[in-house]
Amino acid sequence: MTLLAVGSIAFDDLETPMGIRSHLLGGSATYFSISASNFYSIRLVAVVGDDFGSAEEAVYREHSINLDGVIRQPGSCFHWKGRYGLNMNEAHTIQTDLNVFANFVPNLPDNYKNTPYLFLGNIDPCLQLEVINQMSARPKWIALDTMNFWIDGSRDALEKVIKKIDILLINEAEAKSLSKESNVMKAAKIINSMGPKTVVIKRGEYGAMLVTPDICFPVPAMPIENIIDPTGAGDTFAGGFLGYLASQGNLEETSLKYAMFVGTIAASFTIENFGIEKIASVSMSDFQGRLKHFLEILRMPEL
Amino acid sequence: MTLLAVGSIAFDDLETPMGIRSHLLGGSATYFSISASNFYSIRLVAVVGDDFGSAEEAVYREHSINLDGVIRQPGSCFHWKGRYGLNMNEAHTIQTDLNVFANFVPNLPDNYKNTPYLFLGNIDPCLQLEVINQMSARPKWIALDTMNFWIDGSRDALEKVIKKIDILLINEAEAKSLSKESNVMKAAKIINSMGPKTVVIKRGEYGAMLVTPDICFPVPAMPIENIIDPTGAGDTFAGGFLGYLASQGNLEETSLKYAMFVGTIAASFTIENFGIEKIASVSMSDFQGRLKHFLEILRMPEL
Repeated sequence: MTLLAVGSIAFDDLETPMGIRSHLLGGSATYFSISASNFYSIRLVAVVGDDFGSAEEAVYREHSINLDGVIRQPGSCFHWKGRYGLNMNEAHTIQTDLNVFANFVPNLPDNYKNTPYLFLGNIDPCLQLEVINQMSARPKWIALDTMNFWIDGSRDALEKVIKKIDILLINEAEAKSLSKESNVMKAAKIINSMGPKTVVIKRGEYGAMLVTPDICFPVPAMPIENIIDPTGAGDTFAGGFLGYLASQGNLEETSLKYAMFVGTIAASFTIENFGIEKIASVSMSDFQGRLKHFLEILRMPEL
Repeated sequence: MTLLAVGSIAFDDLETPMGIRSHLLGGSATYFSISASNFYSIRLVAVVGDDFGSAEEAVYREHSINLDGVIRQPGSCFHWKGRYGLNMNEAHTIQTDLNVFANFVPNLPDNYKNTPYLFLGNIDPCLQLEVINQMSARPKWIALDTMNFWIDGSRDALEKVIKKIDILLINEAEAKSLSKESNVMKAAKIINSMGPKTVVIKRGEYGAMLVTPDICFPVPAMPIENIIDPTGAGDTFAGGFLGYLASQGNLEETSLKYAMFVGTIAASFTIENFGIEKIASVSMSDFQGRLKHFLEILRMPEL
């Protein structure tokens, strides 16, 4: 059983108050798949350029991520250059070069078309729809991420694809923009009515909130003292959340709530070093140890 | 056994996306004492003007709040006019008239001087220090609130009073400013080392975080769909938190953690109507009901 993820593979140049790094392997599909691979078998659909070599490929292979759906095009990988100030909640984009990503059209290998779980990373909603249409059977669930660029510029296509999905992961400002509602609880419920019965509102350093027609479950972020680089925290959260959910094989309340903690812990590792350095090397016992510690921190006092 | 609170009594003019109200009874001491009075017996030290009449006095009397320490001066009560946009986390001050508050010097009645619990609301740190000096015996604990105005303009006096207290309640931006540290966890630990062993970081709609040398306990806000007016949420939180703590008579971990939930629920009622309207009228059974519901919402899933 596998989870199919579609998204971007990129090289990032990053500047945070803790240092400067260039040409780091990144992109939403990279953070997502490495994080999810701790819990489930992952298949990847993405595009890379000539600058994606065997060293990069090895990173995914080490996590048993299937790359049959990753196509190579002449040119360079997607490139993002960003900077964070002391308020690491906010990224300032310095440069974006779409490169081979500009003409990316997902084309699923035949052996991918019946994958039971599907995650549509943050790409053009028309392409997200195209991926759904290429599936030979409707997946058990479809999850999706998006951003303001598509909410503002491709609302019709986005609403069309959102109608077909089960789980939406979205940050708080984008949820308000998508729903045209400034109260986050009302916003989540409006999004529930647009299609996805499960909505996860990502709130950066303030954690995340799960909203379904039956439950509302806010989870604070794991308190981290040494934040090095917040890049990829949201994608890592999505990977932990969905990888764990796929491993459970259901969308029951207990699975959803526990998945919120798994996503939170995954994100907490990512931000402790530049790029994927920490999340790609964390052991399952370290992961379980921090998860246990976090659940202990949050434990309700007995009166 | 009683809790002594020092702070402001005011009349507020408020504008939120949900409506406009003028001449509402407010001020930090008002929100605090009404909220705390649900759990403990409260004594108030404040100053009012000629416009504070029997109708206003009745509000405190109904909550059995002792007003022996409230002095009347010629002139008008402190007046604040503020506006909130759709992002109700942020208040825009339109007008502030200190009025009788400008020359306020706390002068404790003799029967107040041995009160076992002391809350120093957000006033000039020199006056907060003066109140401590007027106490005949060191209270079992002293709690304090402050704001950027004093952090920026009266740091020496503030650091002097902070050294003498046990509990600091402070919002996130102010905690970062006071500690000169942008990471909230590090900021809280620095403040621990400045004096107060218990620090509560208030994060508005994102909840609050308790930090002591032994524990870090983040609590999300109660999700509220119909926010009418956020004025006083922080003071109401402080009232619930400290009123409950006083009722427990200790600063043990269980008491502190439970107090975080009590403060959270108190604040959630305040924001559901203008001014003190909701928090002043909520029944203990409604309060307990929502607290139970909130603890249920946050309940950890059993795997």
